[in-house]
Amino acid sequence: MNRATFTALTGAIAGMLATRSFAAESPESHATPHGAQRIAMLVYPGMTALDMVAPQLIFAALGNTDVQLVWKDRKTVLSDTGVPIVPTQTFDEVAPGLTVLFAPGSSYPVMNDPKVVAFMQRVGPSAEYVTSVCTGALILGAAGLLRGYRATTHWVFHDVLATLGATPVAERVVVDRNRITGAGVTAGLDFGLRMAAKLRGDDYARMLQLIFEYDPQPPFDAGSKAKAGEKIGRKVRTIFAPALASAKKEAAIARERLTL
Amino acid sequence: MNRATFTALTGAIAGMLATRSFAAESPESHATPHGAQRIAMLVYPGMTALDMVAPQLIFAALGNTDVQLVWKDRKTVLSDTGVPIVPTQTFDEVAPGLTVLFAPGSSYPVMNDPKVVAFMQRVGPSAEYVTSVCTGALILGAAGLLRGYRATTHWVFHDVLATLGATPVAERVVVDRNRITGAGVTAGLDFGLRMAAKLRGDDYARMLQLIFEYDPQPPFDAGSKAKAGEKIGRKVRTIFAPALASAKKEAAIARERLTL
Repeated sequence: MNRATFTALTGAIAGMLATRSFAAESPESHATPHGAQRIAMLVYPGMTALDMVAPQLIFAALGNTDVQLVWKDRKTVLSDTGVPIVPTQTFDEVAPGLTVLFAPGSSYPVMNDPKVVAFMQRVGPSAEYVTSVCTGALILGAAGLLRGYRATTHWVFHDVLATLGATPVAERVVVDRNRITGAGVTAGLDFGLRMAAKLRGDDYARMLQLIFEYDPQPPFDAGSKAKAGEKIGRKVRTIFAPALASAKKEAAIARERLTL
Repeated sequence: MNRATFTALTGAIAGMLATRSFAAESPESHATPHGAQRIAMLVYPGMTALDMVAPQLIFAALGNTDVQLVWKDRKTVLSDTGVPIVPTQTFDEVAPGLTVLFAPGSSYPVMNDPKVVAFMQRVGPSAEYVTSVCTGALILGAAGLLRGYRATTHWVFHDVLATLGATPVAERVVVDRNRITGAGVTAGLDFGLRMAAKLRGDDYARMLQLIFEYDPQPPFDAGSKAKAGEKIGRKVRTIFAPALASAKKEAAIARERLTL
């Protein structure tokens, strides 16, 4: 999708203005397009870029959306694998009444970062949809936004959701009222298409699927614990042991803070 | 994958040093880990971030890789949908002898940008693998790197590959000797796993598939022209008409330059 295609795509929708490009330096350019649906996607150091980038592509391609990457400040954040991403808006600049609030994984101290918690609690309750991919669900949960909701997260972290007052569900995308959560990392594509269908209808989502040529053909069939087998599953659990310990520690702190 | 997991993962591999994080400001931190396989991923204004971000995650998770996002300078580039990404290395800083050279889509003037062409021609011939996702293949082609090779690209652009001396093949990932090309946008995941298998073996690729929970379950089955149906296909072709015209124009210029 080049800029012209993107313009044609977004321009095609309901005759609205095409979603404009961001210019990180110029606050003027962040003016919300008239009547646009505002989508705030949390970004932070140590996040998994793919968790955010796949849904961002879909949200931006809905047309008439104002998609912002939000953080405490506009300093470049490094993803877990070293992709430097520049936030486009600070927490203070995000007004309540969002169409979508979104959190990606995968860093756990962020769950109890007072500024993150305050932001999520300020804009979460009025958001039309409160959403996440991967362990972004733990950030929602640590702000009390999943209490009493069914939700999913990366398969290694399901138990941690329960600590945060949610009911973990082993599905690719879990929809419970306006809480929509995706499983690990690559579930962002399936999550994004579900969101596209909710916000623009099934045919629009199908069109985006064809535009992004989402006709998955993984060379192996190892995308779930059951399919990957015992040996690989054990290896992954070992690799994730420190991360799981960190997430559990933060969840316990959040639980006490939230008096769950 | 948080930093600890990432470290555990990369640390687990062959006992090598974990791939370190990038610090865009500090050139010292860009020192190549001892013996690491160098991977250079082109980034540029108007690119589709997802084309690059999915393979980047996989390349970084191979461990003992030095993955750089390369451009003319280190100024932030905006993706087509407005994700601001900071390049981590300039063209001048990339020595030949790469393990992987990679190009993402989706802007066409970049095909004939003299600095891009010069860079691709300087480091392409000595790279162990010359690769792309989506219309990144057109950038490879415009540098003469696909002449006589079978290759794929986004489905709308297949004919343009032929103008650049390649043989277009309608497959998700096409491997012809050391040229490995993926189809549109989301094919980056399937491409990335194929690369992981080539560079680290099938079981390693399966492990990454489980870590990234790549068990695709798109809510619709519209990821190819045939599956999406006539009506949606026609709509997408209309949306892409200006982009296709731009790509064809640039391919004609490149063809003349390359004396194909």
